[in-house]
Amino acid sequence: MIDRIKWGGTKLAILDQRLLPDKITYLTVRTPQETALAIKDMVTRGAPLIGCTAAYGYALTLKGSKPASWQAAASLLEKSAATLKAARPTAIALAYAVDRLHGKAKSFIEAGKNKTLTPDDLKKLAALIDKEAQAVYQEDVDANERLSELGAKLIKPGSSVMTVCNAGALATAGMGTALGVITRAFEKGRVRHVYSLETRPYLQGARLTMFELMQSKIPAQLITDNMAAHIMKTCGVSAIVAGADRIAANGDTANKIGTYMLGVLAKYHGIPLYIAAPKPTFDLSIPDGDHIPIEERSSREVTEIRGQRITPKGATARHPAFDVTPGKLIAGIITEYGVISPVNRANVKKIIG
Amino acid sequence: MIDRIKWGGTKLAILDQRLLPDKITYLTVRTPQETALAIKDMVTRGAPLIGCTAAYGYALTLKGSKPASWQAAASLLEKSAATLKAARPTAIALAYAVDRLHGKAKSFIEAGKNKTLTPDDLKKLAALIDKEAQAVYQEDVDANERLSELGAKLIKPGSSVMTVCNAGALATAGMGTALGVITRAFEKGRVRHVYSLETRPYLQGARLTMFELMQSKIPAQLITDNMAAHIMKTCGVSAIVAGADRIAANGDTANKIGTYMLGVLAKYHGIPLYIAAPKPTFDLSIPDGDHIPIEERSSREVTEIRGQRITPKGATARHPAFDVTPGKLIAGIITEYGVISPVNRANVKKIIG
Repeated sequence: MIDRIKWGGTKLAILDQRLLPDKITYLTVRTPQETALAIKDMVTRGAPLIGCTAAYGYALTLKGSKPASWQAAASLLEKSAATLKAARPTAIALAYAVDRLHGKAKSFIEAGKNKTLTPDDLKKLAALIDKEAQAVYQEDVDANERLSELGAKLIKPGSSVMTVCNAGALATAGMGTALGVITRAFEKGRVRHVYSLETRPYLQGARLTMFELMQSKIPAQLITDNMAAHIMKTCGVSAIVAGADRIAANGDTANKIGTYMLGVLAKYHGIPLYIAAPKPTFDLSIPDGDHIPIEERSSREVTEIRGQRITPKGATARHPAFDVTPGKLIAGIITEYGVISPVNRANVKKIIG
Repeated sequence: MIDRIKWGGTKLAILDQRLLPDKITYLTVRTPQETALAIKDMVTRGAPLIGCTAAYGYALTLKGSKPASWQAAASLLEKSAATLKAARPTAIALAYAVDRLHGKAKSFIEAGKNKTLTPDDLKKLAALIDKEAQAVYQEDVDANERLSELGAKLIKPGSSVMTVCNAGALATAGMGTALGVITRAFEKGRVRHVYSLETRPYLQGARLTMFELMQSKIPAQLITDNMAAHIMKTCGVSAIVAGADRIAANGDTANKIGTYMLGVLAKYHGIPLYIAAPKPTFDLSIPDGDHIPIEERSSREVTEIRGQRITPKGATARHPAFDVTPGKLIAGIITEYGVISPVNRANVKKIIG
């Protein structure tokens, strides 16, 4: 798979996923502010990948600026952290990565603040942050691998599976979450066919998931989102696998708009819906899905498709970018630490902590 | 509302709905074959309107051709009927209208066939067909009016309602079926807001229903199809109203793809789903929904949006244009003869015959 982000030490090249699959173009950012804007504008997307991107974005703070004091360094980093975390509200992996790096930086600053800040201190602080960003990235690669292996075992041999949005390599640092599970299951002969929901309004399923499936030579067909119920009823779907943007302590899961629809439809048709997500997706500070903030994006992203208006002039649209699937509609949450099933508070605690 | 079809005696002008709302253009057809092609290519659409269009298309048979014998006339008309009925397989209003006109024509031919066919006979036969086409059209206008009035009473004052595809004036000869009910309910102060599903792949909800709702000054917001479940859960939807393409003897209803999804979601959220459809939508020869033929259209209509490919090159898609909602998921079928509720074979028989 093509690189999603390329870390250059003082700059970050971000694959512009808005132009996929037609164009492979990278946007180079040199500041945390530019990184935050790229995340907000969906140059890059996918909860785990947003986390990794934000980590490197935070690491850019000390590359362009050379603060003169510990206080100035702390203030710069504080600003970076806030800007990056505000870029998108739903995916908790973003806050997880930024808080983790910022925590390390703050401890370092705290330990040093009674001495004068030297260029060498700054170098060490930057190196510490870089190392932590690299750790966030590598942990995602490893988590993808482990959860894909675990998840593949849940898919029955010869299955036709359904997925929504893109929770593949293009959404992560590694082989993907939902699509990682599907890919690994395919390699083991457990998947014979995939239905990819196109996932309006951004068409990640049509553009990105179909791209990955075709690259992996997994037989796949695109469907519009409104076909999912009919396909479940008439085409023998064995399992549905989706990713996640934030999972509450009771297992309620925020993911791309349409996942809740799949949850209800899956329950009705007796098909298991699995959520595949690494530990940084969990937000144990949130008791249940009602407390997960749902990003409402611009109406225009719905009334226009690739710059072409599809409605009468002046029409307005709702644009919740995510929805929440209650844990009771989820057959299992596949993590790198094991499968949470049945999905409830006790089992989330047992597996995630 | 703008004219959907304009009958000119020897030609039929058909509003090209593929270009709405941006352009108001008419395609003029002069033969049944041209009419069938316009229906097949979705220049016009909407089950009742397809029926009316096909009726006039059939009436065109004797406008360009002057058959020399009764047998030649019968053969020409037989060919017209077959071509028109083959244009689209799911909407039964098409077959209803064609069979009705063709039945009248055959009786006339049967009665006359022992005499020589005169120009005056041909004129009378053509006039008979024209009159019947006009009756099909006028009956749809009247049925719309009556079922809208009946249906409006089912909507609670102050409701937020949801609809899919376009079952409005643009789908009928009159004020519409589902959108007729919503419009009449709005006039009576019963509807305060409408959610219109965009209805991929053809975007009839975004293009046509939003157009009609805005013309009628009914507060409305567009949603993508995958938002319906989230909106039902979080926004207090009181009722869902949809049209129909074919209703079996037990009330199972084929309608635009996504309606079955709404049926399952409506049931889960305790929201009534009403189907609004005139009598020609019923196909009592078909025992249940499993026997309704579902049109599978071109994959390309999904992989491209307005000529722009949205997938990697070579990607394929499913394209069932309709799905079947079991009667048990429908709270009531609103017809011009009364509301069928609960939806079952006995009640369909009681109201429709």
